Amino acid sequence: MSFRLALFTGGVLLALLGFAMLIPAFLDLADGVPNATAFFMGSFISLFIGTSLFISNKDNFTSLSIREGFLITTSSWLLLSLAGALPLYYSDLNLSYTDAYFESLSGITTTGSTVLSGLDSMSRGVLLWRSILQWIGGIGIIAFGIVLLPFLKIGGMQLLQTESSDRSDKFIPQTRHLVSRLIYVYIILSFACFVTYYLLGMSGFDAVNHAMTTLSTGGYSTHDLSFGYFDSWPLQLAATFFMLLGGLPFVLHVRYIFMHQSAYQFDEQVKGFCLIVVVTSIPIILWLLYHHVSTFSEAFVLTAFNVMSVITTTGYASTDYTAWGPFTTGIFFFLTYLGSCAGSTSGGLKVMRLLVFLKGSKQQMNQLIYPNGIFQSFYQGRPVDNSLLINVIGFISFYVLLNAFITLALTWVGLDVDTALSGAATAIANVGPGIGDIIGPSGNFSTLPDDAKWVLCLGMFLGRLEILTVLILFSPRFWKN
Amino acid sequence: MSFRLALFTGGVLLALLGFAMLIPAFLDLADGVPNATAFFMGSFISLFIGTSLFISNKDNFTSLSIREGFLITTSSWLLLSLAGALPLYYSDLNLSYTDAYFESLSGITTTGSTVLSGLDSMSRGVLLWRSILQWIGGIGIIAFGIVLLPFLKIGGMQLLQTESSDRSDKFIPQTRHLVSRLIYVYIILSFACFVTYYLLGMSGFDAVNHAMTTLSTGGYSTHDLSFGYFDSWPLQLAATFFMLLGGLPFVLHVRYIFMHQSAYQFDEQVKGFCLIVVVTSIPIILWLLYHHVSTFSEAFVLTAFNVMSVITTTGYASTDYTAWGPFTTGIFFFLTYLGSCAGSTSGGLKVMRLLVFLKGSKQQMNQLIYPNGIFQSFYQGRPVDNSLLINVIGFISFYVLLNAFITLALTWVGLDVDTALSGAATAIANVGPGIGDIIGPSGNFSTLPDDAKWVLCLGMFLGRLEILTVLILFSPRFWKN
Repeated sequence: MSFRLALFTGGVLLALLGFAMLIPAFLDLADGVPNATAFFMGSFISLFIGTSLFISNKDNFTSLSIREGFLITTSSWLLLSLAGALPLYYSDLNLSYTDAYFESLSGITTTGSTVLSGLDSMSRGVLLWRSILQWIGGIGIIAFGIVLLPFLKIGGMQLLQTESSDRSDKFIPQTRHLVSRLIYVYIILSFACFVTYYLLGMSGFDAVNHAMTTLSTGGYSTHDLSFGYFDSWPLQLAATFFMLLGGLPFVLHVRYIFMHQSAYQFDEQVKGFCLIVVVTSIPIILWLLYHHVSTFSEAFVLTAFNVMSVITTTGYASTDYTAWGPFTTGIFFFLTYLGSCAGSTSGGLKVMRLLVFLKGSKQQMNQLIYPNGIFQSFYQGRPVDNSLLINVIGFISFYVLLNAFITLALTWVGLDVDTALSGAATAIANVGPGIGDIIGPSGNFSTLPDDAKWVLCLGMFLGRLEILTVLILFSPRFWKN
Repeated sequence: MSFRLALFTGGVLLALLGFAMLIPAFLDLADGVPNATAFFMGSFISLFIGTSLFISNKDNFTSLSIREGFLITTSSWLLLSLAGALPLYYSDLNLSYTDAYFESLSGITTTGSTVLSGLDSMSRGVLLWRSILQWIGGIGIIAFGIVLLPFLKIGGMQLLQTESSDRSDKFIPQTRHLVSRLIYVYIILSFACFVTYYLLGMSGFDAVNHAMTTLSTGGYSTHDLSFGYFDSWPLQLAATFFMLLGGLPFVLHVRYIFMHQSAYQFDEQVKGFCLIVVVTSIPIILWLLYHHVSTFSEAFVLTAFNVMSVITTTGYASTDYTAWGPFTTGIFFFLTYLGSCAGSTSGGLKVMRLLVFLKGSKQQMNQLIYPNGIFQSFYQGRPVDNSLLINVIGFISFYVLLNAFITLALTWVGLDVDTALSGAATAIANVGPGIGDIIGPSGNFSTLPDDAKWVLCLGMFLGRLEILTVLILFSPRFWKN
C-alpha cells in the first residue's frame, strides 16, 4: 500500500479548501471586518500545506487499491475538517480550538450542530464560511458515496455500483466523468434553490447561504432562529422541496438532467423513502390537529418541513418540534436514525439498508418455516444474497452499537440520558439538533463540556464516513503487507 | 400441519398449572384468607379446560414438524399466562383483568415488573402464586430454549443443538430424557438456594419465594422494598451467586451434576458473560467510590448484586441504582438489553449472539480489506458461516426494531420518552424494573394507563419467545399448505 495517493489527494483537496477560504476573506475585507485576516491566514496555511503535499506526491496514478481507498477517505475528511477550523479559530469569535473544530467538522460532515449563537450579528465571512463548509461536505459525500463506497463494499453500498465504479485498472479515469457530472448537477440545483429562495423573499446573502446548506442537507443557518426567522410558508415549502432533492440519490438527478430520463419512479429506494415520509407524516399531522394547531394547512406545512428536515438529516428548525409531545418526538427520533437515500447528501442509516433488511428478513422468515425451500428476493433487480445481507445487517448493528457507545461516553462526561441519547443520534446521523432543552431545536451545543464535544465529533466523523471506513484503519490486518 | 399436538400440549400444561394453583389455595385456606376461593376457582377452570383439551386431542405423537413447534410454543405461553391471571383476578386485590394479566404474564415470562404494591400485607397465597408463576416460567423457558429453539433455528440458537435436539422422527422420545434431567437440576438448585437463604436469615416463606424467583431470574419479591428489605450483605451475595447460576446455560449444570464434568470454563458464552460482568462492574465500582460510598466492600456488594440482577434479567433491587447518575444508568441500560447466556432462564439479547456478532464482524472487516481472502471464525468449535451470521444479526436487528416499535407505541399512549424507552427495554428483555420515577427500581407499573400495560405485555411476550417464534405466525406463508 502506498501513502502517496492519499497524501496527493489530501493535498489537492486542502489547496482547494484554501482557495475557497479566499471568498469569505474578500467578503469580510469588503465589509471592513477584521475577520478578513483570519481567513487569509487560514487560506495561506491550507494552500501552503496542500500545495506542498500534492507537489511532493504527484505521480501518474491510474489505479486504486481498496486499502488506499479507505485511507484516502478518512485522511481527506480529517485534513479538511482540521483546516476548515482555522479561520474560525483565528476569527474575532474567541472560540477555543475545540469549538472551532466542532463547528468545522459539523459543517463539513453536513451535520449542522452549532456551538455559535448570535449568528444574526456575526461577520458575513464567518456565516458564508460555515455554509461553504457544508456545501463542500455535501458534494464530497456524494462523490464518496457513489464512487468509493461501492468499491469498498461498505454496508451494502455495492448496490449503488454503476459501470464506472467497477473495480478495474481504469478506475480513476472512468470515475472522473461521473464526478464532473455530479458536480455540475449539484451546482445547477444549488443555483435553482438560490433563485427560488431569492424570489420568495430572502435577501441575496441569506438565499446564497441557505441554498448551499439546503442542497447539502447541512442545515447551518444565518439566523439563530434558523428557518423560523423567515416565518414564511412558501419559503418553508420551497425548502422542503429542495431538501427532498438533497435527500434523493444524485445519480437520478444526473440521469434526469443529462439524459432527460426520469428514473425516480422506478427506484425502490425513492419509493421507500416517499412511503416513509407519508406514513410518518400522517400521524404527526393528526397529532398536531388534535393537540396543537387549528388548520390542516398549518399542520401540513409544519409537518412537511420538519419531517423533511429531519429525515434528510438537514436539521433546519422552523419551530421547536420536540415541544409537540413525546409521541412526535419519538417519530422524529426514529427519522433521525433512519436518514434518507444512499447516494445523496443525507446521513443516517439510509432507506436502501432498511429495504434490504426487510427483504432479507422476509426471506429468512420463509426459510425458518420451510428449511428446505429456496427463497430469493431482489433489490432493484439484484439478488439479495447472504453476503449482501450480512454487509447490510452488519452495518445496521454497528450503527446501533456506535450509538450505544457514544451515548454511554456522553453520560460519562456528565450529560443527562436524554441529551446523551439524542446527541449521539443526531451526531452519528449528521442531523444537527437533538432533543431536550440543551441541544434541542431551540438550543445549541455551546454549553456542553469540551469532552462531550470531542465525543460528538467522533460520532459525526464516524457517522459521515459510514463507520467501517474509519474503524477498518484500526484493524491490525489493514496495515499488514 | 395438525393443531392436535398444540392443543394436546397446551391442555397438559394448563392442567398442570391448575394443579399448581391448589398449593396457594390450600395455603390461603389454612391461613383462613378469603383468597382461597379465588385459587380454587382458577384451579377448577384450568383443570377443566386443560383436561378437556388433552383428552380430546390425545394421540400417539412421535414427530414434530417445525410449524407445529412454533404453534405449540406461542399457544402454550398464551394459554398459561391467561389462566395464571385467573386467581389474581378473582382475588381480594380488586384487580382489573388488565392488571391481573400483566402480573401473570410478567410472572410467567420471568420479567418481574409488578402492578402490585403493599406486598408485605398481601395474602401468602397470592405471593406464593406470583413466585410459582415465575418458577414455572423459568423451567419453561429453559426447555423451550434448549429443546425447541435449536430445532426452529431462531436467531442462531442452533448453536445450542445437542444430539437430542437434532431434527429427526424420534425427536419427542429423545427429548424427554434431557428435559427430565433439566427439571431435576432446576429443582436441586432451587432447593439449594432456599436452604442458603433460610440459613442466612430469611423466614421459611420468604426463602421459598425468593429461591423460586432467583433461579428463574424472575425477580418477584414478597416485599415492596424487594431485596432491599433484608438489608443483609450475606443474603445479597448469596442472591448474586444464585442469580449467576440462573443466568448460566443449564446444560452445563446438568453436565456438572449428572456427569461431574465442569465444562463452564470451556464454554465461550460463560467466559464472555464473566468478562462482561467484570468489565462493566469496574467502572461502576469506581464511580460509586468516587461519588457515593466510602468503602470498597460496600461498593463491591452494591455493584455485584445490582449488575447481576440486571444482566441476568432478574430485576431484584437492593437500592435505587438509577439514582447513582446518568453514567451508571447508561451501563445498566446496556446490561438490560444484553441479558446473559442463551439456554438459561434469563432474557435479553444473550451473550452468545453478541459473541457471534463480534466474530462475524471481525471476519467481515477482514473481508473488506482482502476481498479475495478466505476468513473463517469459530464459535465453540463450529464455523460462523454466513447463514448462522444472518440468523444472529437478523435477530439483533429485530430486537432493536421491536424496542423502537414498543417505545413509540408507549409514547403514543402518553408516556414520557424515558419511561417509554426503559419500559420497552425492560419488558422485551424480561428484566423487571425500568428507569425513571414511575417504573424505576423504587416505583412500579400500577400507575401506567391500561393501553401502556397491554403494549408492555406485547413486549414481554415477544421478548420471552425470541420475537420471531411469534411473528412467524403472522406470515401468510406459515398457514399455507
